[in-house]
Amino acid sequence: MAENMASHNRAVILLSGGLDSSTAAALARAGGCELHALSFDYGQRHRKELDAAKRIAAELAVRQHQIVRINLGDWGGSSLTGDGDIPTEPSGKTIPSTWVPARNHIFLAIASGYAEVIGARAIYIGVSEVDYSGYPDCRGEFLDAYQRAADLASKQFVEDGISIPVLAPFLHLPKSGVVRLGLALGVDYGLTWTCYQDGDTPCGICDSCRLRAAAFAEAGIPDPLFT
Amino acid sequence: MAENMASHNRAVILLSGGLDSSTAAALARAGGCELHALSFDYGQRHRKELDAAKRIAAELAVRQHQIVRINLGDWGGSSLTGDGDIPTEPSGKTIPSTWVPARNHIFLAIASGYAEVIGARAIYIGVSEVDYSGYPDCRGEFLDAYQRAADLASKQFVEDGISIPVLAPFLHLPKSGVVRLGLALGVDYGLTWTCYQDGDTPCGICDSCRLRAAAFAEAGIPDPLFT
Repeated sequence: MAENMASHNRAVILLSGGLDSSTAAALARAGGCELHALSFDYGQRHRKELDAAKRIAAELAVRQHQIVRINLGDWGGSSLTGDGDIPTEPSGKTIPSTWVPARNHIFLAIASGYAEVIGARAIYIGVSEVDYSGYPDCRGEFLDAYQRAADLASKQFVEDGISIPVLAPFLHLPKSGVVRLGLALGVDYGLTWTCYQDGDTPCGICDSCRLRAAAFAEAGIPDPLFT
Repeated sequence: MAENMASHNRAVILLSGGLDSSTAAALARAGGCELHALSFDYGQRHRKELDAAKRIAAELAVRQHQIVRINLGDWGGSSLTGDGDIPTEPSGKTIPSTWVPARNHIFLAIASGYAEVIGARAIYIGVSEVDYSGYPDCRGEFLDAYQRAADLASKQFVEDGISIPVLAPFLHLPKSGVVRLGLALGVDYGLTWTCYQDGDTPCGICDSCRLRAAAFAEAGIPDPLFT
């Protein structure tokens, strides 16, 4: 009970170690949240993002950082988990091969379970449907449907009517706006990792690198990863 | 493409190794489905159910059986993953301590992702809201909301309008009806494992054992696990 009494500002943050989730974490922290971060080791090529997530978690004094291991890569289906190469051309109108089916749905369902266990009051996710790769589970329409399903799978909602809302503060924000906000909040983007490859330096040509570069360019700020 | 052409009868089955999921698998198989089973190693005490799932998968000539490992037990929150003892009293009107928050939501989200990767046309889950422990994510209301979220997180739904339906054939069936159906389908319940404990023989007093015993008693059939 004491645990719950103390949890009025407890928030779960989905922290990949990239630009958006790191900024979402900083925003929640600036809003007075006690942060409980979840990162996922799911067979992604770019395992460097997990080191970035740990650096950001330390920087933001995250209270608990859970690394969830889940072997999604076992059945392939995505170039991001090693099934084929990461595309080097900009993505067009179709969903690119880096799509990991239902990834955010899976991550969110785990976050909702975790949030119920620790008595968190909100879940933060850094998705945007403005500058993105077209992944279906980054859209507000999905998040609305997700919330309903998550509520109905929750003991505290069913017994007491208490929902744990999923907050996506950047859903309608261009990525350059995320960068500007993050810099205002003091985020050190030199600690983050965005590239889909696991190289010593970002490849600069994957979709994820392109979106990041465009965001810094639009914001008129050099990316500290390249300086 | 050949892979998809051959998949008109491909189904994903959530196979715990217990009575309901084993019967659901047998039902799907009897309906002509090519079975692709998912079982979850999530830190449950009763790891014996994974051996049972393997036995059932072999018995039903499952095409592929994936064991998904996910460390949900790391943060506790359930007696089923070792946080406190399994209750030995029948559950009352509240949700018992064996509840693993969002478990079916997590398992289903993974199943939807897997189904999209392998080109499956349906997902089978053995839940019932008749004889059950009151877990929120075993109810039809949740499954309806889940379906909407899963569709909106699916590339093939967003691009082509194709949904992968979650089928819960026992949702409104008493467990004794599941047993009768399973016996008619030739399910060998001696291969299954239901108990929440990991003993040599079922404990007979956990909620899961009680529900199973009541089902066999109502059906007027001896449970082969005890003969």
